Amino acid sequence: MTYLDNAATTMMDSEIIDFMHEIMQNQYGNPSSIHALGRNSRVIVENARIIIAKLLNISPAEIFFTSGGTEGINTIVKSVLSMPKIKRVITSPAEHPAMLNAIEYYAAINNVELIMLPLDKKASIIMSDLSNELQKTDGDTFVSLMHANNEFGTMLPIQKIGELCKTHNALFVTDTVQTMGKLRNNFSEWHPDFAIGSAHKFHGPKGVGFMYISGDNKVDPLFIGSQERNMRAGTENIYAIAAMAKAMENAYKIMDENLEKMQELKNYLVNIVSNEFSHIGFNGDIEGGLPNIINLAVEKTPNNEMLLMKFDIAGIMLSGGSACSSGALIDSHVMEAVGRAAKYRAIRVSMSKYTTKNDLDSFIDLLKTI
Amino acid sequence: MTYLDNAATTMMDSEIIDFMHEIMQNQYGNPSSIHALGRNSRVIVENARIIIAKLLNISPAEIFFTSGGTEGINTIVKSVLSMPKIKRVITSPAEHPAMLNAIEYYAAINNVELIMLPLDKKASIIMSDLSNELQKTDGDTFVSLMHANNEFGTMLPIQKIGELCKTHNALFVTDTVQTMGKLRNNFSEWHPDFAIGSAHKFHGPKGVGFMYISGDNKVDPLFIGSQERNMRAGTENIYAIAAMAKAMENAYKIMDENLEKMQELKNYLVNIVSNEFSHIGFNGDIEGGLPNIINLAVEKTPNNEMLLMKFDIAGIMLSGGSACSSGALIDSHVMEAVGRAAKYRAIRVSMSKYTTKNDLDSFIDLLKTI
Repeated sequence: MTYLDNAATTMMDSEIIDFMHEIMQNQYGNPSSIHALGRNSRVIVENARIIIAKLLNISPAEIFFTSGGTEGINTIVKSVLSMPKIKRVITSPAEHPAMLNAIEYYAAINNVELIMLPLDKKASIIMSDLSNELQKTDGDTFVSLMHANNEFGTMLPIQKIGELCKTHNALFVTDTVQTMGKLRNNFSEWHPDFAIGSAHKFHGPKGVGFMYISGDNKVDPLFIGSQERNMRAGTENIYAIAAMAKAMENAYKIMDENLEKMQELKNYLVNIVSNEFSHIGFNGDIEGGLPNIINLAVEKTPNNEMLLMKFDIAGIMLSGGSACSSGALIDSHVMEAVGRAAKYRAIRVSMSKYTTKNDLDSFIDLLKTI
Repeated sequence: MTYLDNAATTMMDSEIIDFMHEIMQNQYGNPSSIHALGRNSRVIVENARIIIAKLLNISPAEIFFTSGGTEGINTIVKSVLSMPKIKRVITSPAEHPAMLNAIEYYAAINNVELIMLPLDKKASIIMSDLSNELQKTDGDTFVSLMHANNEFGTMLPIQKIGELCKTHNALFVTDTVQTMGKLRNNFSEWHPDFAIGSAHKFHGPKGVGFMYISGDNKVDPLFIGSQERNMRAGTENIYAIAAMAKAMENAYKIMDENLEKMQELKNYLVNIVSNEFSHIGFNGDIEGGLPNIINLAVEKTPNNEMLLMKFDIAGIMLSGGSACSSGALIDSHVMEAVGRAAKYRAIRVSMSKYTTKNDLDSFIDLLKTI
């Protein structure tokens, strides 16, 4: 099997599985219990918070554990778009469906004006558009722009966006799900008000993630109650929280060499495709984008309609867009947003530290026959 | 260590840990991906749904996976109390804090009248009160009453309540977190519109649970998006979902003998306390309540203020109330609600299949010295 769908989800590290196994075996106290077993669990949760905060150069008090990226997004978006002062939300059609779904829903019920920034061909916003929109406003605007696009790998200049939002007194969330554990995200420099992480994107378990909520902000909880300092009720998923922190720590340990490896593999694939496949191009920012994502543009013909299925049959796991929409076999919303869906099919090759040159060769060999 | 706090959370079965380990190792596809690895994960999730539905004698389409009991409660309460037709909510002060928090919050923001039923000494409602309240209404009322109280073990006549709600066209949620996997809950006979389960209460993992939403109903999602048939977005926690189903299956396999064992242990403890501790009584329904919960009533003296801490120091894990409030060292809200908090301290002994007579003897030995 050749797994090239790491932007959808990643294999858990066996070290993380063993670690989680050990905690499941030995630590089962409810962190809210006052007895020793409960306190042990509390220590596990708080240690995880400290580990993640340190990696992100923020305060542990700014980390809130969730059941995953979607919960974080929904908590933040619901909360901010329900604030009486918020009258406008600025975002882009290239945001993840989880973000777009939440923004569209809560903008509608709160009568918040929804401004979709236009995109260039690479699914990047034009900074002057954002700047123009922000000039019209003071304190009544929420901006949601993702760090790296999950389909194209295109990266936005988050630090500049953060500074612009700060200047114009706009609240700013950045969906960092695709870059968390892959790049050295520095929230203290970027000034986002909110950001999101999900463990299963960096070889941690599914069912756990976190919200970054900067010290200046707070949210209305989506689950009402006392845990996570009244921001997120429910018995903490202690094993998964600990496993997430360890997976993130591991990701940081090998980050530089892994980035180099990803870039080498990306260059390898891009060179072969450029040189040997005259009918295939690229979607997104192939030079500047996230090193682990390469999105190929294949001109649509009736013959290649079942393209991804052919790869699947051959044991090569790929995606045309985000996993969340792929079940419906519809065109990628990002391809639509950049006006390429009518002419091209997208093949997203997304890699991880477990990806090898052999994996890419298997992919290329099959691509030649199609 | 003597663990007598199983109503707060339970030890995971080692078989369930191994099973979860295996899935974490071998199945990591995103269930929304269309390729083979994704489809494998989809099968795991849907099999789990079928297993749980069969145990509960309902349709798999009525099960929606969540991150735990609190998420299920918040999804249902937010959704129902936001329905324009709902003008009244009837509940009891003995409900779990997660339920009370959600009801109070959403009743207030939706201008829904909140009716708290009076309780008898055992924390049970009086059926005629409910019946009287329901007679005033037709189709505008939501009823939330738990199956078994988590502090006292007191059980409500859920089938009668369900029938009464049906007669009066009221929507009915029952918090079944304490009885799930312990009693043969039959939703088809009880007619609840909604019910809740949480895996970590029956030796499954933390961070996973489910909502029962009867076929006649639907909810507004708390996480907006496509998964769980648009009722709960987010990449599914496949390992924990599978582990929950297996833990529930295991619980059903030994249910009858375990209930017998719990009842024997309960009788053993109740007899010793009744015969040898003249100054100690019981809170709740000691005859009819859940067999795994015994709540002792110790008259308050300045000397026994640190009662639970003394047990903790001796390695005996107990609780005075629900774990969620115990961190605050405040009196149990159920003890307050039944008017016993001023005079008595509560010691909740909550057992599981791993509890032995020796555990109870350790508890009794220490109780004698206090």
